[in-house]
Amino acid sequence: MQIDHLFADRVKTLKGSAIREIFKLASQPDMISFTGGLPAPEMFPKKELADIAKDVLLNDGATALQYGITEGYDPLKDIVRKRMEDINVAKEQDHVIIVSGAQQGIDLAAKVFLNEGEGIIVENPSFIGALNSFRAYNAKLYAVDVENDGMNMEQVENLLKNNDTIKLIYTIPTFQNPSGITMSLEKRKQLLEIAKKYDIYIVEDNPYGELRFKGNDIPTIKSMDDTGRVIYVGSFSKILSPGLRLGWVVACPEIIQRIVVVKQVNDVHTNIFAQMIATQYMRKHSIDEHIVKIRALYGKRCGWMLECMDRYLPEFCEYTRPEGGLFIWCTLPGEYDTLAVVKECIKRKVAFVPGNTFMADMEKPSSSFRLNYSTMSEEKIEEGIKALGEVLHGLRA
Amino acid sequence: MQIDHLFADRVKTLKGSAIREIFKLASQPDMISFTGGLPAPEMFPKKELADIAKDVLLNDGATALQYGITEGYDPLKDIVRKRMEDINVAKEQDHVIIVSGAQQGIDLAAKVFLNEGEGIIVENPSFIGALNSFRAYNAKLYAVDVENDGMNMEQVENLLKNNDTIKLIYTIPTFQNPSGITMSLEKRKQLLEIAKKYDIYIVEDNPYGELRFKGNDIPTIKSMDDTGRVIYVGSFSKILSPGLRLGWVVACPEIIQRIVVVKQVNDVHTNIFAQMIATQYMRKHSIDEHIVKIRALYGKRCGWMLECMDRYLPEFCEYTRPEGGLFIWCTLPGEYDTLAVVKECIKRKVAFVPGNTFMADMEKPSSSFRLNYSTMSEEKIEEGIKALGEVLHGLRA
Repeated sequence: MQIDHLFADRVKTLKGSAIREIFKLASQPDMISFTGGLPAPEMFPKKELADIAKDVLLNDGATALQYGITEGYDPLKDIVRKRMEDINVAKEQDHVIIVSGAQQGIDLAAKVFLNEGEGIIVENPSFIGALNSFRAYNAKLYAVDVENDGMNMEQVENLLKNNDTIKLIYTIPTFQNPSGITMSLEKRKQLLEIAKKYDIYIVEDNPYGELRFKGNDIPTIKSMDDTGRVIYVGSFSKILSPGLRLGWVVACPEIIQRIVVVKQVNDVHTNIFAQMIATQYMRKHSIDEHIVKIRALYGKRCGWMLECMDRYLPEFCEYTRPEGGLFIWCTLPGEYDTLAVVKECIKRKVAFVPGNTFMADMEKPSSSFRLNYSTMSEEKIEEGIKALGEVLHGLRA
Repeated sequence: MQIDHLFADRVKTLKGSAIREIFKLASQPDMISFTGGLPAPEMFPKKELADIAKDVLLNDGATALQYGITEGYDPLKDIVRKRMEDINVAKEQDHVIIVSGAQQGIDLAAKVFLNEGEGIIVENPSFIGALNSFRAYNAKLYAVDVENDGMNMEQVENLLKNNDTIKLIYTIPTFQNPSGITMSLEKRKQLLEIAKKYDIYIVEDNPYGELRFKGNDIPTIKSMDDTGRVIYVGSFSKILSPGLRLGWVVACPEIIQRIVVVKQVNDVHTNIFAQMIATQYMRKHSIDEHIVKIRALYGKRCGWMLECMDRYLPEFCEYTRPEGGLFIWCTLPGEYDTLAVVKECIKRKVAFVPGNTFMADMEKPSSSFRLNYSTMSEEKIEEGIKALGEVLHGLRA
């Protein structure tokens, strides 16, 4: 049947990505996978959540199983708000909404602001889920290089000088996906100043901020803003469980009110049972102590992966040394297309994601790739990096 | 802060609706509420789901709490597919996707087809969640009257003759929300023929189809289509629990593939824990036996509400006599604005939804209103209808 001509333009913009094929291959049982951004499943508090899930349904099943309100389950909103106040993200006047994962938070922020053809500044590389969300609004992506201390601010300002359709800046300032890079305090302040100067808004996506295993915290951009110009997106995916699909957005009331309206047509409300489980978990257990354990595990695995990379990868490889989060970003010199490296590695049962996946222009070959260290054992990490090293050494031969 | 000028047009289109205020008032504890489309909470299988929830997390917590795939949890997809095959909705070539409630299914179908300014034919009145979803795409809504046997087909054909931007028809053919009306077999066949003739697609929304308590089933539109022209949206909200946020879409592979891509940017995937709970529930218990009980309860409550209406409402009121679903649609003669009736009733602690809420043009006063009978006890139903009757008798005085 002929149907393609009837689809909306936004669907034509979103091509089936190479990453989906790689993920499929990576899910083979004997594959060493450094692909996803998955949390380590051994850290899920299964037993605790199992007891809580049963209790919630027995004690308040009529609430857990009924329709809820779009803004979110009040007790969970209160807990999240308190945590956000503690790090100065939520100011007195701010509102909080619970969303179905941070992805939805990002998508709804874009939905509230971006008309077709309007612009958003994104980091290059950046999180593919966010980039695809913006593409689905037929927005124009303006890419800015990520340097060792974050976005190139000159590029940001130049773009804003020359394009008056740009309304938003999307950034993951802390342990960025995919680069692992953290934006410096100076650049955060600069970004805020630029946003004020050009009257635009910042979407600060911070799913990894609590996963620091080295160095000192840097204040979030939202915490330094007193003009209501930052939309902060948080997530339970990396500190509790992604399967529960729980995230939150903190912003000024005007923005949250609009997000509520557009969320209502997306999915009415976030799974209320999951919201009640997260609430009870945080009432009965210390999520901060839980996070300490996650940090320790990821710190160990990241350190070990870097040690293996130092040992097995050829000298021409450059890579980031993250202080938190889930990813290492590795760059080859010159004009390598790392898609070919990935394909060769998959033959050796090692999978990771080629750099072009994360770029505003996915068609252009990339000499970088992303490695995830959160899910594989130390043994598998060594085995995988060793195989990667052999493939990379072969390239130079 | 000045921010309104920065919001996207779609947000300006979606006004805060009167219904939200009414729902807020209706949630007061002493209110007799005929407002929502909520299932009766006493029918939730709390105990069974509590045991299942615990078992799922203990036995397969690593799957339940981890990221899942966008298409849905395979065992749930298989069960849904089998049920849909049994009523001939899923054909051999069709695909199924699990979505975060039927609202998301409707929204994604629109996202796949509708560019800004393109048209969709809707029933007048219709489900406000769907209408707002289409409004958020800046689509043009073409409204068609709902008669006692469903949409006015002449109006449908006239619209298609005169507007070549129309791509979709949205219909709730069975126990329509808000009218309770069921489209006749002839009209279903006619609608399919018209869709073929003008090369457009039908979104068949069927959340109430299994809630028939009187009369005989009429085949779904999807079951009669052998051209892949119908997108069928189903829901667990009315047969199991809305809080779990589980629905599904059945359509030809080309459409489901596009829905997968746009869902991925909306919320990555549907809550996997909820999907596993629904799967285990249907493996261990008969959902069909459960539905028989729900039908019996709603049949009793609907019958009782109609009996009370016959007794207490003035003769000038006309209302539908549904054979299933959740709603009765009541119409006053002439030019009454039922918003005023609703406000007067709320003072007497009885709440329901004025008709303009469900119209393509919400600004125009409506002489109809919607009554829900699924959640109130027989005692409350009588008390509420009696008060409504007093208010309506007063109107004529």
